[in-house]
Amino acid sequence: MRKTLKEIAELIEGEVAGDSSIIITGISGIREAQAGDITFLANPKYASLLGQTAASAVIVSKDTEAPAAKSVIRTTNPSLAFTKVMSLIAPDESKYYKGVHNTAIIGKNVLLGKEVSIGPYVVLEDNVEVGDKSIIYPGTFIGHDSKIGKGTLIYANVSIRERIIIGSRVIIHSGTVIGSDGFGFVTVEGKHHKIPQVGIVEVQDDVEVGANVTIDRARFEKTVIGRGTKIDNLVQIAHNVIIGDDCLLSGQSGVAGSTVIGKNVIIAGQAGVIGHITVGDNVIVTAQTGVSKPVSSDSIVSGSPAYPHMETQKIRACTHRLPKLFDLVSELKIRIEDLEKKLKDKK
Amino acid sequence: MRKTLKEIAELIEGEVAGDSSIIITGISGIREAQAGDITFLANPKYASLLGQTAASAVIVSKDTEAPAAKSVIRTTNPSLAFTKVMSLIAPDESKYYKGVHNTAIIGKNVLLGKEVSIGPYVVLEDNVEVGDKSIIYPGTFIGHDSKIGKGTLIYANVSIRERIIIGSRVIIHSGTVIGSDGFGFVTVEGKHHKIPQVGIVEVQDDVEVGANVTIDRARFEKTVIGRGTKIDNLVQIAHNVIIGDDCLLSGQSGVAGSTVIGKNVIIAGQAGVIGHITVGDNVIVTAQTGVSKPVSSDSIVSGSPAYPHMETQKIRACTHRLPKLFDLVSELKIRIEDLEKKLKDKK
Amino acid sequence: MRKTLKEIAELIEGEVAGDSSIIITGISGIREAQAGDITFLANPKYASLLGQTAASAVIVSKDTEAPAAKSVIRTTNPSLAFTKVMSLIAPDESKYYKGVHNTAIIGKNVLLGKEVSIGPYVVLEDNVEVGDKSIIYPGTFIGHDSKIGKGTLIYANVSIRERIIIGSRVIIHSGTVIGSDGFGFVTVEGKHHKIPQVGIVEVQDDVEVGANVTIDRARFEKTVIGRGTKIDNLVQIAHNVIIGDDCLLSGQSGVAGSTVIGKNVIIAGQAGVIGHITVGDNVIVTAQTGVSKPVSSDSIVSGSPAYPHMETQKIRACTHRLPKLFDLVSELKIRIEDLEKKLKDKK
Repeated sequence: MRKTLKEIAELIEGEVAGDSSIIITGISGIREAQAGDITFLANPKYASLLGQTAASAVIVSKDTEAPAAKSVIRTTNPSLAFTKVMSLIAPDESKYYKGVHNTAIIGKNVLLGKEVSIGPYVVLEDNVEVGDKSIIYPGTFIGHDSKIGKGTLIYANVSIRERIIIGSRVIIHSGTVIGSDGFGFVTVEGKHHKIPQVGIVEVQDDVEVGANVTIDRARFEKTVIGRGTKIDNLVQIAHNVIIGDDCLLSGQSGVAGSTVIGKNVIIAGQAGVIGHITVGDNVIVTAQTGVSKPVSSDSIVSGSPAYPHMETQKIRACTHRLPKLFDLVSELKIRIEDLEKKLKDKK
Repeated sequence: MRKTLKEIAELIEGEVAGDSSIIITGISGIREAQAGDITFLANPKYASLLGQTAASAVIVSKDTEAPAAKSVIRTTNPSLAFTKVMSLIAPDESKYYKGVHNTAIIGKNVLLGKEVSIGPYVVLEDNVEVGDKSIIYPGTFIGHDSKIGKGTLIYANVSIRERIIIGSRVIIHSGTVIGSDGFGFVTVEGKHHKIPQVGIVEVQDDVEVGANVTIDRARFEKTVIGRGTKIDNLVQIAHNVIIGDDCLLSGQSGVAGSTVIGKNVIIAGQAGVIGHITVGDNVIVTAQTGVSKPVSSDSIVSGSPAYPHMETQKIRACTHRLPKLFDLVSELKIRIEDLEKKLKDKK
Repeated sequence: MRKTLKEIAELIEGEVAGDSSIIITGISGIREAQAGDITFLANPKYASLLGQTAASAVIVSKDTEAPAAKSVIRTTNPSLAFTKVMSLIAPDESKYYKGVHNTAIIGKNVLLGKEVSIGPYVVLEDNVEVGDKSIIYPGTFIGHDSKIGKGTLIYANVSIRERIIIGSRVIIHSGTVIGSDGFGFVTVEGKHHKIPQVGIVEVQDDVEVGANVTIDRARFEKTVIGRGTKIDNLVQIAHNVIIGDDCLLSGQSGVAGSTVIGKNVIIAGQAGVIGHITVGDNVIVTAQTGVSKPVSSDSIVSGSPAYPHMETQKIRACTHRLPKLFDLVSELKIRIEDLEKKLKDKK
């Protein structure tokens, strides 16, 4: 990268305060930045870092006070502006695997869009569709009758079973499995009989799915990952789960079968949600929480089992003072015994 | 699917009450069902759903009261009967990959049974055996001297290391790793020295293993998954673990090294069992539980660390009332101080 | 294996007490050992097992008292000595895939060291380097500009993205993903915008990474796994995490973004560490613990949220006695009421 501060300011529709002719050659976090780098400050609270960073320029909000010696670009949303700058250096995935590699196995009636890239040792079974400009990395398997949208990026060694629907601009990281059978059995006299899982999975537009994630197909109907939802690594989504739009599911979290999650829900790391319940919109499930009952919209839950976060915080504070409570009760007991004795003596 | 209700009744050895000439074209859950569908009702307690479902017919138990207007098939076990009906529409995995694909790498002395299907880019190292009618999906690796039974189904991108034994009618979902080295080190002066893991894994008949599961090989001897046990996605089974027959291990649960699990044990989601202990038969470990001590047969445990479920329930109820207890003790303290003062004043 | 006890004693620099001409044909744990086997006893506390084992010989520490009838080898560190004996029977991974398999896809400017083994269907993109004697199993993908050290072993179906640095003598088990994008988004008006993850991962020398592990690339700079650290299966390491040397991370544990872990830290199974904190050297995080605050060196933490282990143990003991405390407080309340009544009556 080699851009003047002026050029970057134009890109992000910001206003330079300082020397706009500076050459920016790199991008970095505010603490790690070196001369030549541009960085950003999202929160005016940390404005003192502006005097400490070695960065040549900093993207700041309109109301951030900056030292006169430091070149800054003022803009409405520094985080978002910074992502635009970063996109200048974002890797261009489309440079590898132009066209269909000659080792890719392409089934019957496969429909490939324009400028599709299919890497070595990819297997597309019969009737698969891949939309324009989508990229599929080596070793990925896509089962028959599955459909991949446009501009979607699927990394190496992903396994997508048959009849799965993947939207446009979706990113799927390596090792992820979509459409494996749901975990459904009927137990008769101690033996578990498999219930055929004949439903599908629908991953809607603009979803990102991390590495080694598992999303099971529905028993009937479909498992759904809503538009714009982002899923971190090693997350488990069971059969018939419906996840709303724009959710964030952090690493190693899991959602059990048939549960419905609303929009804009955040499920933090290693948290779990039991099956067959509904979680409302804008809910936050904190890390390692175990949700065992329905959760209404706009609430924060924590603890295992989960309660409203304020309640859990209060109970945790009490729990932490338990040794003192035991001591106090022991002391009160002695004082009561003393009172009882004194009162008896009075008679 | 297109069958009369009479034909379905014969298949499941049930008795039609209502119009046996109805044409059934689909299968669905009782709440989602539409005209043309058949569904089932396992629990007579929910008999009121029979009046609400749009399904054309319902499989019910012999003692379920049904509205006269609704066609039903009465049978002993509606769930089991329904799985038979579902098997009519279960996908037939054997239609892909007839025979050995010309890109599969077949090592020396590999023994393939009758009607075996081996997909593209499968690698079978030397001395591997695959039993009759088994199916191996693309990109799967099977190490030397491993043996796969009959009628076993292994999905795409599975990795099975050397000398592993997989039984008959086993299902292994994508991304799963069987036979990776156990996590064993001897630490000398702060450095961890690898202990060779020279044992094997034995996955017995009728086991199902979910997606992205990991089952480590034993240090010596073998790690065992007992006959009929079903393992969900992202489960970790450490080295030298012995799991009994007909267990159910839900998503993201884990069993640490050398632990022995009995028969018919249920380990719910995200629960963990410590190493080197024994868990008896018919035990239920609830979700997110952390088992740190041996568990005797026929018990239910919960909590982290785990206690008998009734005990944990009682303690959780107490914990939840802690803020009130703190208030009560504060009040009692004041009343004691008051009593002490009054008694002193009396003197 | 077929060695005399004398030969084994020479290998481990130990001293035979008993018949040094015995032929050893196998290796086993002390409880499972049979005639012909050699085993070891690390802890003199369990010396009684020496009289019970069927093993033909036992490696013991210099101060262990052994029955005269049992042949032993005395040595300083029996565990370490035993690992040397085990290495006699450790599988020799170098016997498969001599040289580069003709189905491996080798990009432009790929540098392969001496005696490198590359299995079938491996994909090495442009500018990849693989050091001397390293072995790459079938189906593994390595992105452009990544560098693999010497004597490193990468099992089947591993996915390593572009520009990743893997050291020497590293072992990476199947299904693992290194260099997937960190989970980073800027949320503007409810929509999550992807932050390009342009950093790398550095896995230093002598690291072992289990099966189906995920290690994300940094946003900038690098995610680091320190020299000699061992990672178990299904572990999640988020972007920009720095793990020190010689740590042990057990199965299904996770470390969130930008956290710095010291040296010789042990993180037990299913434990999690929150992002953006520092954990000191020699810390032990017990199983299922949730670390939400910085941890100073040389401490043990447990609980979710985590506290010093002694504190958590005390609180857990109190929690367990809660039903009794409730009973006691109820009883005290009655006695206070009784005192109040008596005192009132006195007036």
